Amino acid sequence: MEGSYPLQARNTVRRHRERAKYDFETVHSIVNASPILHVSFLPTNRDDDPFPTILPMIGYMGSFDGSSMGALDLYLHGHSASRVMRLAGNDRPEGIPVCVAATLLDGIKLSLTPFNNSCNYRSVVLHGYASIVTVEAEKEWALRLITDGLVPGCWDNSRVPPTRAENLSTSVLRVHVASASAKINQGGPSDDRKDLQDDEVTGRVWTGTLPVWESVGTPVPSITNKVAQVPEYVVQWRQNHNADNELYAREALEKGK
Amino acid sequence: MEGSYPLQARNTVRRHRERAKYDFETVHSIVNASPILHVSFLPTNRDDDPFPTILPMIGYMGSFDGSSMGALDLYLHGHSASRVMRLAGNDRPEGIPVCVAATLLDGIKLSLTPFNNSCNYRSVVLHGYASIVTVEAEKEWALRLITDGLVPGCWDNSRVPPTRAENLSTSVLRVHVASASAKINQGGPSDDRKDLQDDEVTGRVWTGTLPVWESVGTPVPSITNKVAQVPEYVVQWRQNHNADNELYAREALEKGK
Repeated sequence: MEGSYPLQARNTVRRHRERAKYDFETVHSIVNASPILHVSFLPTNRDDDPFPTILPMIGYMGSFDGSSMGALDLYLHGHSASRVMRLAGNDRPEGIPVCVAATLLDGIKLSLTPFNNSCNYRSVVLHGYASIVTVEAEKEWALRLITDGLVPGCWDNSRVPPTRAENLSTSVLRVHVASASAKINQGGPSDDRKDLQDDEVTGRVWTGTLPVWESVGTPVPSITNKVAQVPEYVVQWRQNHNADNELYAREALEKGK
Repeated sequence: MEGSYPLQARNTVRRHRERAKYDFETVHSIVNASPILHVSFLPTNRDDDPFPTILPMIGYMGSFDGSSMGALDLYLHGHSASRVMRLAGNDRPEGIPVCVAATLLDGIKLSLTPFNNSCNYRSVVLHGYASIVTVEAEKEWALRLITDGLVPGCWDNSRVPPTRAENLSTSVLRVHVASASAKINQGGPSDDRKDLQDDEVTGRVWTGTLPVWESVGTPVPSITNKVAQVPEYVVQWRQNHNADNELYAREALEKGK
C-alpha cells in the first residue's frame, strides 16, 4: 500500500525527525501489531471536568468498502455501555475527536550516563473522529477484523455469527483518521564524546541493549474445554508471534549506529 | 502503605466493578511495573484544535518529602523542548490537567465465541495536575527514581551526577494525583450456558488462556562498550523480571473462576 499521511502541524514530529515515518504501511503495521491501543478523548464539559480520559482498547485498521485510497480507518470494539461509546453515539454523527496511541517497546539501552539511556520502540500517534458503526454488515466485518487481528483464524474457529443479544451489547467504533505519524527508534546506545574519552568511566560502566519483546506462553485449557488438542491456528500464531517479536527486537538493536 | 484513592464520579469503575481496586498499593505497583506510560493532555486552544494528544513516557511514583500520607506523586521525564513540557512550564504553576494510563497485558482468553473472548490485564487510569519540577534536589531525586524504576541499580552503576548541560535539557514533570483507579482481570475464559450445553460447539472449539508477558533477552554490548562482564545488577534484574512476569501471567489465569 503506497502513500503517506500528509504532514500537518499536529502530526509533524519535531524532536528526532530522523525517527519519524508517515507512510501508510509503517503506521498501519505498528497499530496492528499492538495488542492494546490507548484511546484518549475530551471531557464533555470542560468547565466541570478539566481532564481528558484514556481507555485501553483493542482494535485493527481496515477499509470496509475498499475506497480508502490507502489511508485506512481504525476499528475499535467495546461494550455498548462504556463511556466512549455513549459519547460517540450521543447525537454526534460527525464523530468525537480522539487520539489513539500504539506503542511497542523493543529494547532498553543503557549508556555511560542515565541522561543518555533510551529505548528502542515503535510508536504511532493518530488523531481522528470516532463514530459508532451502525451498518450491520460493516459491524460484523469489523468484529471479525478485530478478532482475527489479535489471534488470526480465531473467528472461523469459534461459534459464529454473533447472536442478536451479543450484537446489541457490543459496539464498534470507526475512527476516521485525520492525521497520523509513527516514530521508530533502533540501534544501540549512544554516548557523549567526553564520556567515551574518560577511561575511568568506560572502564567501569557497561553499555549495551536489553532486547524486549512480548512473549506468549504455552496455552492453558479452560476448565470447561473439551477439545484435547490446542488448535493449529493457536499453535502457529504463538510460534510466529514469539519468533517475529524476538527477531525484531534483536535486529533493531543492531541497526543504525 | 495503607489507604485508598477516594471514589469520585471520575474514577469510579462502572462496568465489571468486581475488577476495580482503589488502594494505593495496587495503583502504585501497576504504574511502577509499566515500562511505558501513556500521558494524555488537552489542546491549548480547543477552537483551533479539537483533539487531545497522547505521549508515551517513562515514569515512577514517589514522594519527595515523604509527606504524601500514602498517595504518591507520579514523576515523568522528558526532553525540555517537548510539547507537554512547554505546556506545563508555560505560566501554569497549578499544573496542566493530564490523564495517565498504565496497562499490562497478562493473557489472551479464547472462549467458545469471539463475543466472550477477553484478556487478563492490570490497568490504571489516573488524573492529575502536571507541573515542571523546579527544585534541583527534587529533580535529581526524581531522575534517579525514574532511572532505577526501569532497571534498579542503574543510577549508581553509571556516570553520575548529571552535568549542567544534561540537567538543562531534561525536564521532570510531577503529576499531583487528583483521582485514580485500577482494574484487574484474572482467571480463565467464561462462556454462556447455551454455548456450553451445545455439544457441537464444545466438541470443536478449544477454549483456554494464552499467558502473555514482557520478556527481556540476553544483553548485547554496545560497539563502544569496554566492560567484559554484563554487570550483576543487569543480570539479576533481567532474571527476576522475566521470572516474575511469567509467574504472574501463569498464576493470574488460574485465579477466579
